[in-house]
Amino acid sequence: MITIALAKGALLKDSISIFKKAGLDFSDALNIDNRMLTIRSKCGKGKALLVRNGDVPVYVSYGQADLGIVGYDVLRESDLVIAKLLDLGFGGCTMSLAVKEDSGYLKPTDLPANCNVASKFVKTARAYFEKMNIPVDIIHLTGSVELGPITGMAEAIVDLVATGKTLKENGLIKIDDLYYSTARLIANPLSLRTENTLQELILTIESSINTF
Amino acid sequence: MITIALAKGALLKDSISIFKKAGLDFSDALNIDNRMLTIRSKCGKGKALLVRNGDVPVYVSYGQADLGIVGYDVLRESDLVIAKLLDLGFGGCTMSLAVKEDSGYLKPTDLPANCNVASKFVKTARAYFEKMNIPVDIIHLTGSVELGPITGMAEAIVDLVATGKTLKENGLIKIDDLYYSTARLIANPLSLRTENTLQELILTIESSINTF
Repeated sequence: MITIALAKGALLKDSISIFKKAGLDFSDALNIDNRMLTIRSKCGKGKALLVRNGDVPVYVSYGQADLGIVGYDVLRESDLVIAKLLDLGFGGCTMSLAVKEDSGYLKPTDLPANCNVASKFVKTARAYFEKMNIPVDIIHLTGSVELGPITGMAEAIVDLVATGKTLKENGLIKIDDLYYSTARLIANPLSLRTENTLQELILTIESSINTF
Repeated sequence: MITIALAKGALLKDSISIFKKAGLDFSDALNIDNRMLTIRSKCGKGKALLVRNGDVPVYVSYGQADLGIVGYDVLRESDLVIAKLLDLGFGGCTMSLAVKEDSGYLKPTDLPANCNVASKFVKTARAYFEKMNIPVDIIHLTGSVELGPITGMAEAIVDLVATGKTLKENGLIKIDDLYYSTARLIANPLSLRTENTLQELILTIESSINTF
């Protein structure tokens, strides 16, 4: 039995579609009434754990899941040991630096020294500013990061931007992009070496995404 | 203008009721279509920031909110400087240690040395086991902690328990209680010293909860 950690939320539908093409059908998980945390594939050969985005690398790293699909943004924040296998191409969004439209800041170096920057992605934000030698204080928020500049608590935010609608609604503009994030296939390193069926499944997924 | 950070989710309704009795009506925030992050009170004298539970102490500590209502469980995880004012009594739940019903563990000291314990409340869990001199590894999960024992990743969990329904549905039982958590009124220490209207509001809230 192959166990797969899938992130609930925005990536779920495309993640299920990827595994369906490879022969493991977890589409019961898309039933909105479904509160189950684990789902068997219709063929009985696979099991999916439905977990939060940030928890996918945890289950894969500890070996409770052989494979997982998770956003690159989450992997950048994680220290856990996992094997990074494939860029699946979907779930695309940009990790961006944004400020208030009327702030007058046009580029990162315009930000005042030691200003506050709010982010859910503390490690990413810290590494970005350290690389540019810009001293800032990172404020860790867990949601609605755009409130940082609106309330005056932060001069800027580092956050994921998909359509840009949330930024616009809150009077914010991007002034830099850190990286482009997409869904990634990850594996437990030990499972990868020892389970032959896993290798076959990965090859099937690889060929299916290459024919998109 | 007094600014108040309110936690979206389970505490919101009672939090709004507390401030309504004290003369600040934010009941527009209970409209389920409302995606606003900030709400003015009907009298125009107050503003509420609607944020995640874990972000309430952040806005209060940085002074973007003068007051906030947040669960004691969140305060136990936070290092931020805030003034803790009142136990509001609602939102009661227990921070508990739970294991699989069929595990045979009846008390914390039954857990095997260096076993894994999953929790969203890493600091709380670590302090609890350190105090009892039980060496365990804490695995940080952000949601559905009950999957830890179900998948075999963890022997136990430290999590908030309200009705006990989630534990039961997942074949888990409590073997210890760490503390009882309720909603707390917190304040920015500087606002507390400098704003007279804040003192009056706090006294009004205090007398209203004492007449429950």
